[in-house]
Parts: sequence; C-alpha cells; structure tokens
Amino acid sequence: MANKVGIASYGMTKFSRDDIKIESILLESTKNAFQNCSNLNQKDVEAVLVSTNNNSKYLSAVLSEISGIKPKISHSVESLCNSGTNAIVSAYSYIASGLADVVLVAGAERYDSPGQVLEWDNSRGEFKHPIFWASIFTKSYKREYNVRDEELALVSIKNHHQSIKNPNALTKKEYTLDEIMNSKKLTDDLKLLDCSRPCTGGASIVLASENTINHLTDSPVWITGIGQKTTSASFTKNITFSAMESSRISANSALKMSKHKADQIDVIELHDAFSVCEPMALESIGVSSKGKGLELVKEMIVTDSPKINPRGGLMGSGHPLGATGIAQTIEITQQLQSKAESRQIDNPKIGLVHNMSAASTSSTVLVLEN
Amino acid sequence: MANKVGIASYGMTKFSRDDIKIESILLESTKNAFQNCSNLNQKDVEAVLVSTNNNSKYLSAVLSEISGIKPKISHSVESLCNSGTNAIVSAYSYIASGLADVVLVAGAERYDSPGQVLEWDNSRGEFKHPIFWASIFTKSYKREYNVRDEELALVSIKNHHQSIKNPNALTKKEYTLDEIMNSKKLTDDLKLLDCSRPCTGGASIVLASENTINHLTDSPVWITGIGQKTTSASFTKNITFSAMESSRISANSALKMSKHKADQIDVIELHDAFSVCEPMALESIGVSSKGKGLELVKEMIVTDSPKINPRGGLMGSGHPLGATGIAQTIEITQQLQSKAESRQIDNPKIGLVHNMSAASTSSTVLVLEN
Repeated sequence: MANKVGIASYGMTKFSRDDIKIESILLESTKNAFQNCSNLNQKDVEAVLVSTNNNSKYLSAVLSEISGIKPKISHSVESLCNSGTNAIVSAYSYIASGLADVVLVAGAERYDSPGQVLEWDNSRGEFKHPIFWASIFTKSYKREYNVRDEELALVSIKNHHQSIKNPNALTKKEYTLDEIMNSKKLTDDLKLLDCSRPCTGGASIVLASENTINHLTDSPVWITGIGQKTTSASFTKNITFSAMESSRISANSALKMSKHKADQIDVIELHDAFSVCEPMALESIGVSSKGKGLELVKEMIVTDSPKINPRGGLMGSGHPLGATGIAQTIEITQQLQSKAESRQIDNPKIGLVHNMSAASTSSTVLVLEN
Repeated sequence: MANKVGIASYGMTKFSRDDIKIESILLESTKNAFQNCSNLNQKDVEAVLVSTNNNSKYLSAVLSEISGIKPKISHSVESLCNSGTNAIVSAYSYIASGLADVVLVAGAERYDSPGQVLEWDNSRGEFKHPIFWASIFTKSYKREYNVRDEELALVSIKNHHQSIKNPNALTKKEYTLDEIMNSKKLTDDLKLLDCSRPCTGGASIVLASENTINHLTDSPVWITGIGQKTTSASFTKNITFSAMESSRISANSALKMSKHKADQIDVIELHDAFSVCEPMALESIGVSSKGKGLELVKEMIVTDSPKINPRGGLMGSGHPLGATGIAQTIEITQQLQSKAESRQIDNPKIGLVHNMSAASTSSTVLVLEN
C-alpha cells in the first residue's frame, strides 16, 4: 500500500426530522469539519465525495462551489444505507493510490429520502419497506435461538439510553421495557421502538495521507482495516435469515488487513437498523458467538459500559441513510481521540465500524486505530 | 503508484431512444464485456461501479446479482455527464491502491434521464436546460473569434459523417450543411442539429491490475494519464464563456502524468455535447491554439481523417449521460488495439478521452496507451 490514510477532521449536524435542503445539510457538516481543523484550507482539498440517496444531481460540484473548494475529483456515491462507508473507502483509495492527498467525504440525507423503500427487489412483492426483512430476521432469530421479544427490546433500551449523551441524537429520550413492548405494533414481530427512524442529518469527514495529516491534526486516527462485501441485492437471496453473511466476510477481511482479532476491539459502531440487527451483527462480525449477542447487550446495560454504539446507534441517534456510515466513523474517531465527552469509554485503542445496506446484502467494516 | 492499471475488456449496447429498464441496459453491456473476454470469470470481479444519473437506488448490487458477481466494493457514481470517467478513475484508484485487482465499471442511462436538466443552478433562472449555456458559449465563441454558424456546423457534418461507421450510433445518418442550417432553430445561436441528443444506452469496461491483466487479454491498453477538475457548479461562475477552464487544467494534469505533449496524441474522444464544444475543447486541451479549433475540424473533413471523435462523438453517437465517458474510453481502447473496424485510424499509439459536465464546470481527461 503506497500511502497510509488517516482521519484529519470531521463535522456533524444535529439529526432531526426538519425540512432542510440537502445542499444546506451538506454545507453545515462541512463547515463544522473546517472549523474543527484550523490548518485545513479549501485549496488543500483535492477530492469531494458526497454520500447520499437524494435524487438531486451534481451535489458534489454544488457542495464544492458553496464551500469554496475547487477539487480535482468530485462525484456522488450511492449504495443505500452503506453509502457513507463506501464513500470513505473510495476516499481511502484515492489517497492510497496517490491521486489525492486530502479528501472531503460529506454525507447527507433528508427525512423523506427515496432510499427508504427497496423498490428494485421484485422478490419482495409488495413488502418493499425494510421493516419486512427486519421482521423475517426477527422471527428467524427468535426461533433459532429461543429468544423473547423482551430480550430483543434490551437493544432499544440500551441504545436509547446511550443516545442521551449524544448532543446530535434525534430523540435523546430513554424508554422503559414497558414503553417499548407497548409501542405501536408494526408487524407480528416488530414494534415502533424496535426500529431506527430515518431522519434529516449530515456528517462530513476529512481523510488525509500520512505526509499531509500531521499538518492538519495532532491526533490522527488511521484506517487500518477495510472489508466490504455485496452478496446480493435481493433479500430472498440471503443464505440465512439469522446471520449476516456480508457482514461476516467484511469483518474477516477488515480484521485480517488490520492484523487484529475481534476480541481485541475496544469500541464498536454497529448498524442497528432494528433491534435484532445488533445481536446478529455482533455474532456475524465475531464479537459474540452464535446466539450469544444479546448476552453482551445485557452485560453492557448492567455494567453501564457503552462499548457498542456509544452514541446510541441508529436506533438512538436516528438514521440519515447517506450520513450514517460517516457519523459512525466520526464516533469511533472521537472515542479513539478521547474527545467523546460524556460518551467517552475508557481508553480505547482499536475501534470498528459496521455499516450495511438492505437486509445485510451489502456490508462495510472498517478498523480504526490511533 | 503501486499498481499499473489497464483495460482488460469492454462491452456496449446500441444507443437508441428505446424505453428499456436501466437494469437491462446495465446487464446487456456487462454481458458483452464478459463475452469479449473468455478468461474473465464473475468471481474475479472485486468491485462493481455503476455510472448513471438514473434515480433507482442500489443499482450496483442489483447489477452484481443479475450478472452473478459477488463483489467486495459496489456503489453508484454520479457526476452528471462525466459520471462515466469519474467511475473509471475511481476504479483505477481501487486497483492502484491495492484494494481490488479487477473492477467492472458499467454506465447506463435512459432517454428520459433526470440529469438532462440542471435543476440545482439557481443562477440560471429559468434557463436550466443545457442548451442555454451552449447558446451563450456559442455566442461568445463566435464573437471572440469571428466565426460564422456555417463554420460551426462543420462539427455536426463531420461527427454525423463519422458515426456512419459506428454500429452502435443513435442515428447513423449524414447531414448536409443546408440540412443543419435549416434544422429547427432552438435558440438565437443553436439549431437542432448543433446538439447531441440524450438517449438510451450502456457501456461497460473492465479494468485490471498489471499482475492480473495478462491473464485476461493479450492487448491491454493502459491508463497512463489522469486529470480531473471541478471549478464550480454554476454556469455563471465560469471565468470565460469561450474556453473551458476545467478541461484545460484536466488535460494539463493528464498529459503531465503520462509524460506526453498534446501534439503527440494520435486519437481523441472529445465531449462534443454541442457544435461549439469541439473547437473549444480542442483549444482548451491544447491540441489547437486559441480560435483555431475549427481549422482542425475542416482539415479532418477535407482529408477524411477521423482522428477526433472517430465513433461520431456525442453528436453522431448519441449521449446516454452516465455511459458516455465509458463509451468514449472504449472507442479509444479499440483504436489503440486496432480493433475499430471500419473506423480504424492509422496505427495510433497514444489516445485521449475528454469528458465533461454542465458547461465544462467539471472535466475528466484520460490518456491511454498500449
């Protein structure tokens, strides 16, 4: 690999259900990323990648113009809910290949994103909303591991609890087990508070080469592992409904590249689009053994140790599709820099990001280290 | 640069005004790319990038599934009319950085692409169709270099003439000067036959690393120069209306990287979205001196030497936005491989692709060699 690639700066917006123009969201998180890095000048930025499911065209050129950047490389990246980490890996490759030294990745979405409905998948019949695959995952996981709804609700309890300390979180509200169990029933197996909520939000991150990054930050965080896999687009092509094959493969690759084992990871951002996703992902990436993911969730609640989804995950923070993977990566970066304020966990050295799309038919896993 | 990157295979669809599903277009050109390369197996393809302005989501995962590929990396790339070369450069960076050895880039568009109207640019007022910037470019170029409409029409004559030998071209029809001059008047300075036409079409290309490519083809074409620049998104931020600043910068970078001069280039694909674009681009990339681009066009007509836009350019071939940059790159590849059949020019060694977006506010230039 020609160049080591690190994270030099980042900026966020608050997550909300507000009706804000996509360009304004992109600009706000990007402004914050510049403010967070006094040595970063617009002329340093050689590539601008926008991550979104928004239908507006040429957003990367628009963001460049309104933020005063004249990049070499500029385009939008879309892969539904893991657009953000796809764009980060693309930025990584521009730097590692020598085509750019500093890359801005800006993710943004509106509450009414067209990426919320899985239109292309005819095998789903009329069941095109993600809640239907989540419902089948839940049914399958419950049956395979003899799990009750009350146990799955612990994910929602934990992640909403953790989101209280995230100043950008959508709701910042705790829920009791009763409130979750009695929230609106959406399918046989899912209640409203088992679901993350699409929202309006932005997250920008600046990646830089080894030679450039020391000029920009005194606490760089390095991307030391990358794993990606797309197994299919259609839900029904999943090999199993109680594990995540693309996540398993991606985590294997990322851990191998970083030369670490799953049990060495200190802090994790997991793609908890629905309650069942958290134990399934923990098991698929190898942090828990099969069927044991919820034990780790329970342990974290009992010990009040938020090592999984410290910002509250997608359930607690909200899920602005194209921004999610970037927001996850920012959280791990802040944790490794000991800049996560009241969310800070104790002295983490190695972090992991897990970001996926559409019933885990595609996953990205990143390993970060400082 | 860690790895040299070459073109291993390619496939096209016919360009038409047909109502074909975007997934079907992507699949057809991709099938042709596999058929064109007997040693290429689905399992070799580690990244699938889709280039399009189509609003459908997750197309890269969909294309992967229907063509039997399970890639690591997969997402869509959008930058209006230079989406195609943006995706090719992204594929290049994945290979050069060592993240992938073989990458499929598939571009596709429908005749009714939402990328045809420049919605974001409020500085255009109601004049959001590209024909309005082209009209101002034409007016400005005519005034600055004392050029008549009849001279600009030579671009249309030449490129439609050259498209006759392109089996995939949209119209394959020659036009006389009278026919062009008397075609429907669209603005003060533009007639219908001064314009390229959006269409339905697909183009797929397979890039591979130096270590892998010899297994796939015995006539690899290498990407030896890359230049990209986005100067703005808004038309009114152009420094001049009679030259293309982003194209000038991109060509300089690409030529410098390839260690060649503009006068060493043997064959060129230029982004002739409108008649005036061909002389302007020739001048901006340094092949002609200022105001002299049309002299080269005349010379090519007189000598019947199609070294610029041998497949007929955008005007003769049609312009399926997200596929155009890939189709241009395929044409130069075929020319360098001496596989361009009746379009073949005499023994070219170095080729150049010029692909741009939205009044040349963004450009990509590639240098190819065998």
